[in-house]
Amino acid sequence: MSRVRVHNFSISLDGFGTGEDQTFDEPFGHAGTRLLEWAFPTRTFTDMGFHGEQPGTAGVDEAFASRWNAGVGVEIMGRNKFAPKPGPWPDDQWQGWWGDEPPFHTPVVVLTHHPRPPLELSGGTTFHFLDAPPAEALAYARELAGDKDIRIGGGTSTVREFLSADLVDEMHIAVVPVLLGRGERLWDGLEGIEKRFDIESVTSPSGVVHLTFTRLAD
Amino acid sequence: MSRVRVHNFSISLDGFGTGEDQTFDEPFGHAGTRLLEWAFPTRTFTDMGFHGEQPGTAGVDEAFASRWNAGVGVEIMGRNKFAPKPGPWPDDQWQGWWGDEPPFHTPVVVLTHHPRPPLELSGGTTFHFLDAPPAEALAYARELAGDKDIRIGGGTSTVREFLSADLVDEMHIAVVPVLLGRGERLWDGLEGIEKRFDIESVTSPSGVVHLTFTRLAD
Repeated sequence: MSRVRVHNFSISLDGFGTGEDQTFDEPFGHAGTRLLEWAFPTRTFTDMGFHGEQPGTAGVDEAFASRWNAGVGVEIMGRNKFAPKPGPWPDDQWQGWWGDEPPFHTPVVVLTHHPRPPLELSGGTTFHFLDAPPAEALAYARELAGDKDIRIGGGTSTVREFLSADLVDEMHIAVVPVLLGRGERLWDGLEGIEKRFDIESVTSPSGVVHLTFTRLAD
Repeated sequence: MSRVRVHNFSISLDGFGTGEDQTFDEPFGHAGTRLLEWAFPTRTFTDMGFHGEQPGTAGVDEAFASRWNAGVGVEIMGRNKFAPKPGPWPDDQWQGWWGDEPPFHTPVVVLTHHPRPPLELSGGTTFHFLDAPPAEALAYARELAGDKDIRIGGGTSTVREFLSADLVDEMHIAVVPVLLGRGERLWDGLEGIEKRFDIESVTSPSGVVHLTFTRLAD
């Protein structure tokens, strides 16, 4: 069976995966880019154009970052990772944050209370819009993924909902040594989930702590 | 000038330093002993009688644990670390949790809205009861400490108040891979304090992540 994975999901030391006041220009709100600074210099992110002309790093940050897309057949994301603000869409061709060639190169299931027709963009990314709870969305995504894995791409509440429903097999969290003070907390309402996982941690010279959660056999 | 230090302060992955429902029998509430399991096998804690007849460990957990009392002339603790439940004391000789020979062996300043006469116990520990805000409590503690350092011993809200007042010079936090879900959060209201510190992290085979905060020069 294909696995359900979370990668490169970054939180502050006080547990926020997104800051307050998300806007179109500031997808992470008052957090700005601080939660992802560790990732930008990696080979994986420089190859996506995130760090100018710098050569990418090959250390422990890259070791984790590079796993995000290998073997993944579909991403599930929350509405807020597609575009900010709730409510109806401006129009059916509106691409939110992701531009003409999104970095996913697979189908992407966007969870929203405002379904619309699929949006096919170049490079192999097609956004499917679905109004469904986690287990149902996962069944839908499995159809699209074939025997490949499914990535839960975020945002914070989407990851939390899939954890809460016990649908996550592997999870990589990067804990960044900043205190955001406000925003959306990843860990709320998840008391005791450590019992379902083998948890490892490793530090990086960049200052982040990489945590991995591997689901124990039932 | 003597330094203000926090040692062996343990929090869950979701940031709780104490669980809910603290009672006389359960000082950490529903967290039980889970936040301190990493420390019990260390030489420092076995020497205090926490781990039966086991020989104490000498690894990274011990390296951090052992620093707690060296060079410390006084501890400041919150009322809830002396004994649970608010309100007046049962009587002036009541020793709360700490028994006839507390492990501190120095003066201890207990912050409380119900001052009472000092309580002198064997082994060099004298509890002084003081109703004062952090800066004032620190001035009082410095008189008792001479040129030695001052430890902020907890609980959670006491550490948070001293951090908030920018009175902490060094802090060691152990992050334990459990999700308590509820209790008292260490990091609330401390947005941006990382700018005042050099922060390091190191993992331990026991599964905890040791974080150290060293205050930057003004």
